[in-house]
Amino acid sequence: MIYQAPIKDIQFALNELAELPAICGLPGYGECSVELVDAILEEGAKFAEGVLAPINKQGDQGAKWRDGEVSAAPGFKDAWQQYVESGWVGLRAPEAYGGQGMPALVATAAEEMWCSANLAFSLAPLLTLGAIEAIHHHASDELKSVYLPPMSSGAWTGTMNLTEPQAGSDLAQVRSKAMPQADGSYRVSGQKIFITWGEHDMADNIVHLVLARLPDAPAGVKGISLFIVPKFLVNADGSLGARNDVRCVSLEHKLGIHGSPTAVMSFGDQGGAIGYLVGEANKGLNYMFTMMNHARLGVGIEGLAVSERAYQKAVEYARDRVQSRAVGSPDPTGVAIIQHPDVRRMLLTMRAQVEAQRALALYTAAALDRAARHPVASEKARNQALANFLIPIVKGWNTEQANEITSLALQVHGGMGYIEETGVAQYYRDARITAIYEGTTGIQALDLIGRKTAGESGVTARALLEEAAGCAVKLRAAGLTSLADNLDEAVKQARRSVDFILATFAGQPQRAAAGSVPFLKLMGITLGGWQMARAALIAKAKQGEADVDQDFLNAKLATARFYGEHLLPQAGGLAAAIVEGADSVLEMDEAWF
Amino acid sequence: MIYQAPIKDIQFALNELAELPAICGLPGYGECSVELVDAILEEGAKFAEGVLAPINKQGDQGAKWRDGEVSAAPGFKDAWQQYVESGWVGLRAPEAYGGQGMPALVATAAEEMWCSANLAFSLAPLLTLGAIEAIHHHASDELKSVYLPPMSSGAWTGTMNLTEPQAGSDLAQVRSKAMPQADGSYRVSGQKIFITWGEHDMADNIVHLVLARLPDAPAGVKGISLFIVPKFLVNADGSLGARNDVRCVSLEHKLGIHGSPTAVMSFGDQGGAIGYLVGEANKGLNYMFTMMNHARLGVGIEGLAVSERAYQKAVEYARDRVQSRAVGSPDPTGVAIIQHPDVRRMLLTMRAQVEAQRALALYTAAALDRAARHPVASEKARNQALANFLIPIVKGWNTEQANEITSLALQVHGGMGYIEETGVAQYYRDARITAIYEGTTGIQALDLIGRKTAGESGVTARALLEEAAGCAVKLRAAGLTSLADNLDEAVKQARRSVDFILATFAGQPQRAAAGSVPFLKLMGITLGGWQMARAALIAKAKQGEADVDQDFLNAKLATARFYGEHLLPQAGGLAAAIVEGADSVLEMDEAWF
Repeated sequence: MIYQAPIKDIQFALNELAELPAICGLPGYGECSVELVDAILEEGAKFAEGVLAPINKQGDQGAKWRDGEVSAAPGFKDAWQQYVESGWVGLRAPEAYGGQGMPALVATAAEEMWCSANLAFSLAPLLTLGAIEAIHHHASDELKSVYLPPMSSGAWTGTMNLTEPQAGSDLAQVRSKAMPQADGSYRVSGQKIFITWGEHDMADNIVHLVLARLPDAPAGVKGISLFIVPKFLVNADGSLGARNDVRCVSLEHKLGIHGSPTAVMSFGDQGGAIGYLVGEANKGLNYMFTMMNHARLGVGIEGLAVSERAYQKAVEYARDRVQSRAVGSPDPTGVAIIQHPDVRRMLLTMRAQVEAQRALALYTAAALDRAARHPVASEKARNQALANFLIPIVKGWNTEQANEITSLALQVHGGMGYIEETGVAQYYRDARITAIYEGTTGIQALDLIGRKTAGESGVTARALLEEAAGCAVKLRAAGLTSLADNLDEAVKQARRSVDFILATFAGQPQRAAAGSVPFLKLMGITLGGWQMARAALIAKAKQGEADVDQDFLNAKLATARFYGEHLLPQAGGLAAAIVEGADSVLEMDEAWF
Repeated sequence: MIYQAPIKDIQFALNELAELPAICGLPGYGECSVELVDAILEEGAKFAEGVLAPINKQGDQGAKWRDGEVSAAPGFKDAWQQYVESGWVGLRAPEAYGGQGMPALVATAAEEMWCSANLAFSLAPLLTLGAIEAIHHHASDELKSVYLPPMSSGAWTGTMNLTEPQAGSDLAQVRSKAMPQADGSYRVSGQKIFITWGEHDMADNIVHLVLARLPDAPAGVKGISLFIVPKFLVNADGSLGARNDVRCVSLEHKLGIHGSPTAVMSFGDQGGAIGYLVGEANKGLNYMFTMMNHARLGVGIEGLAVSERAYQKAVEYARDRVQSRAVGSPDPTGVAIIQHPDVRRMLLTMRAQVEAQRALALYTAAALDRAARHPVASEKARNQALANFLIPIVKGWNTEQANEITSLALQVHGGMGYIEETGVAQYYRDARITAIYEGTTGIQALDLIGRKTAGESGVTARALLEEAAGCAVKLRAAGLTSLADNLDEAVKQARRSVDFILATFAGQPQRAAAGSVPFLKLMGITLGGWQMARAALIAKAKQGEADVDQDFLNAKLATARFYGEHLLPQAGGLAAAIVEGADSVLEMDEAWF
């Protein structure tokens, strides 16, 4: 078994926790139904297991650069062709341009499978969808009609060109230039780095979205515009024309995701790449922000997905590997290591977090759908606030924990885990980028304490903790006392941390920021615990029902209890660091480091 | 700056915390003095910084195997030659055989520098010293006189051949055979895996220590004997003779420490490798145990050392990299990221743990020296128990945290951290083996709860916690209230965990084992906090003294306070998992994973 899509778990999180039936009932999702989604998941699982997972390891050999051209890793071009033919690219692309217009919730569930099966591959559709979204929301009808149909089919892929060598996460520093031309187009020039799938041979054309400055643009982030710069220019009839003045200078040598070419792109070495302004001038950063929620949720899904795959591999090894007698047994016969308590603890740590992360991520995707389509304005707004609050948590917490979870998977393998052929080391290396790109955990945490918490006076944070506290009451009524106690205590710690952030952010922002990442983790652990509690209540209620897999329910209850006893108790230590630890962060003299 | 040996920090830990002057005064360490050790550290720093650190990155290209011969990574052979000529191999080798007979405390301090500068390289002397120790303690005078002088000089290196493909950590499964010959020698055959520096071209000969079974040996661990199997046979005059029947079949492709060739070794393919029994038959495992304390402490030092180097690199990057305005500042000008609160928090997390780990490791090394040389039998025994208790903690905690610390260093670098050329990813990859080899963290934790805690009714555990509690009283008297409170609380959590282990280990060993790794981490955090408290008390007492670097003392106090506010509060969550979380680990049905 290479990878087995956890369909039952995904269905449980979709149907029971993220309320898929209600999402399907939103205006404009007419075709969506639980049955259709079941069919999508089943087909998606086959594709992920049969096509994408088997080439993940060879993908680790990496894409190859030669004279500006990049060949995708072995097997990737063929897999992309199949992915396109199966129509997967357009799952949540707009129907008007050939997509299927599925809810974000459904697309997110499918994306977990692509990311688990082959993280490096999955970045090509992720970036393409981000570009589709930006063009769909902000470009002119003319640009949409040219670019969206071939992108929604996957005939062309898309990229995001934000980062420059001197800029990193600070887009105020962007220096790339765009000169207006008499024909209404622009000549774009500059160098961009860290461009995922910036160059490759899987698709006929690559549509680069590029942040650049017009000659008269103001300094800082208010002077950035967004341009479409295609690799091949497009003729009036939609056919491909001349090669544009954009070139892949080199590929980065990375710790992981070797199958995903990370390009250094040079625009305009021969006079200027032809580009087209998206929307209005100087609004590029705003346009980027509209895509950011989906992209950050997508990276949170990546963290979850690599963790799921690493968990599966660790479980399989732990069942097969026989070593040492059972703890405390007089019988010297070796047992499968899954029987050793510490191996069980490691596997449960992985499993419990994966379940909590999936539930929280899908809950967030549902909030995005409600924010986009709910007929009641106040519900739209409430769900937008929910999604805004949860997305930095899902992005930051899922990916930080992906580092720990893939590390535990490696640890379960002992010495074999350190050998590359075993394969688990690849997950450890691949996962490590997810807490960095699309905004590091530190950047997510600043967003969380600032715009998402203090910026709205803690309304959403408190509402979510109120829901969690209500869940604890229900747990107690259902006899799930241990989980109830642990959830209650975590909520208490989270509340005092929210109070601290609200009290300090405006007047002492550095003190709030000192505990921002612990705050993000605390909210992840607590709200993940809330989702586990919801799952446990549902499982408890269904126990004994006919036609329900009782082992599945028992496992949900056991995993939730473990989450309560091993993960929720971390809340107190995090809250202490947030509330009492700011001064020791700030008072260390810079010279003393 | 590639690497700068933290001499002042090492001297503080050696002289103030590990009581070097007292160790120098033990019988048999006549030449040792603080002044001599200062000179050793100074020379060692030059060597580590000037010779070993500069070839660490090229070492990542790896050793090369060809037809059974292995060429060390570029520059390594020359560096080994210099290392030998400088006499570093024999620092703690016995004087009778050409070594310098320095205390373990002094050698351990020097080893930190080798490991920081070049972890892959440092494994060659580490393994050689382990082999020297085994031969010195257990082999006949004849074998000693043949093998120890060239090994103590570094002309020959040594290896440990324990693991077999089917055996892993479970040495009861060892199948390699040794057939007695008429001349008193043996013919050894079998396959061994994961043999560090098992084959290379840096030294004239390689002395393999091999675990194998005699024909009439009992099953299990009581039937394992230890043999010397040299790569080249040794003539009566000490010159090298014929090539022995031992061959490097292949090298492993590993996640990290590429500069250290990890060999699959085949013994006896052409009839049997000539070997010599060390000590008595069937006592091989006991002989291994006598080396284990030093080897495990050595790997704990490795974890500390990679963390130190990663910390240095992160600090340097954080000082240089300018990005984003200061949090809360109206001035949009970018600042060095070391000014951002979360970057400071990451750097302090690394720094505080490195200091605590170094202090605890050197304190442990001093206990080993007292156990070996103290003139009073009861002190000898007490210190042996101390070392026995602390070594699995130093090994397990230092190395687990090395994964986190090197990950934080990578995170400080943002996207650049994921690019291999930056160099920090190598530390992340290199560090990952340390929590696995010489016994995984799970194995250390079982040793800790069993033989080292329950096995002596918690005497040492309680004595150490009593010392820590006493330190908290002194902290309070010195006005260091925050650290006092946090240390007190951690000690309380550690005490209830010790009680739980003692109450469950005999009757319910699986329940004790379920929390064994959290227990190891809790003891690491708490006893690390005790060392930080000792350091803070000393720094506080020295404040204002003439000729003392006040910034150094202030930094010690600030770092200790951070440790108290950010790391010690984790104790409660760990104790909860230990004391209340066993059932959820054990009750999960195996089929439910």
